Amino acid sequence: MKKSIGADTLAYPTPVWCVGSYDAEGRPNVMTIAWGGICCSKPPAVTVSLRKATYTYGCIMACKAYTISVPSTKYIAEADYFGMVSGKTTNKFEDTGLTAVPSDKVDAPYVGEFPLVLECKVIHTHEIGLHTQFVGQIVDIKADEEILNEKGLPVMERGAPFVFAPGIREYRALGEVVGRAFDIGKKFNRPS
Amino acid sequence: MKKSIGADTLAYPTPVWCVGSYDAEGRPNVMTIAWGGICCSKPPAVTVSLRKATYTYGCIMACKAYTISVPSTKYIAEADYFGMVSGKTTNKFEDTGLTAVPSDKVDAPYVGEFPLVLECKVIHTHEIGLHTQFVGQIVDIKADEEILNEKGLPVMERGAPFVFAPGIREYRALGEVVGRAFDIGKKFNRPS
Repeated sequence: MKKSIGADTLAYPTPVWCVGSYDAEGRPNVMTIAWGGICCSKPPAVTVSLRKATYTYGCIMACKAYTISVPSTKYIAEADYFGMVSGKTTNKFEDTGLTAVPSDKVDAPYVGEFPLVLECKVIHTHEIGLHTQFVGQIVDIKADEEILNEKGLPVMERGAPFVFAPGIREYRALGEVVGRAFDIGKKFNRPS
Repeated sequence: MKKSIGADTLAYPTPVWCVGSYDAEGRPNVMTIAWGGICCSKPPAVTVSLRKATYTYGCIMACKAYTISVPSTKYIAEADYFGMVSGKTTNKFEDTGLTAVPSDKVDAPYVGEFPLVLECKVIHTHEIGLHTQFVGQIVDIKADEEILNEKGLPVMERGAPFVFAPGIREYRALGEVVGRAFDIGKKFNRPS
């Protein structure tokens, strides 16, 4: 029996992505978001949504670029911290001891210790409501060699990402492989 | 050492969401997507990105509404199938035996067997490139009572969702709780 629980942002799972940017003075900043996702294959693009009140909002408006550093569970406390305090009042890289690495492709820094990094230039800015959505074209991806397979593709488990559940505010690691995409569903294919 | 792996949609983890819609003749359709996410808190809104070639694209353009049904691992084969074949040529509800339940809030059906459902009306349509992004305002959420906690919030593990890794095309279940959001990062708070 389904119960109506009203209009809210209770979808799951959502990603935990750390958005790197420079402010107008070139100081590196990083902020954790869960309101985002891939939005296009050609050009490859992602979205991140931010409130205007955030420091990162002004940074991205100034530089028209950002990075997404995907944290591993090893750095879960750092990633959580990046979403708790504002770059207006503190330098979150200094606070945590993590490294702001300048992207060689876009005008934004990334978190050197995180295994997967997307470097993005802003191609669209959409006003949705409380949040502004920044569509970023993925210009390059940088990955720790240890997480790549023999084909050069990132292996998700090696990057040890985690997800966020809105509402209950819980982070969960990933578990076992439950299927191959575009494969496990073949059993429903009817003979033609 | 980080390696450049080029511009591609290799971010992870991405959600596995089944988008329900009606075609112009009122036939129910459902399609699995991973290019999406929450995009705004007020109004609560999500995005799903679709290629114009998909049957669901025409359905959403016709009805200006869709649902997102979040599958549990029990239905992983069905969810995978929903992303493998087109509603142009087959009725995916009939093929899998799952139930198209008419939303009482928007002009779209949802998957009755899946534990969490978002009912959305389209408030923006953004052309990004190969994919069109449909921003849907969440009008209501329906959840199986079994996945709700005492506060009426969905407990992610009870819904048993899974995530998709682009590139390696792998589905993974969720694992253990690794932290409380807005809490585990407090250790970096400096005394003020």
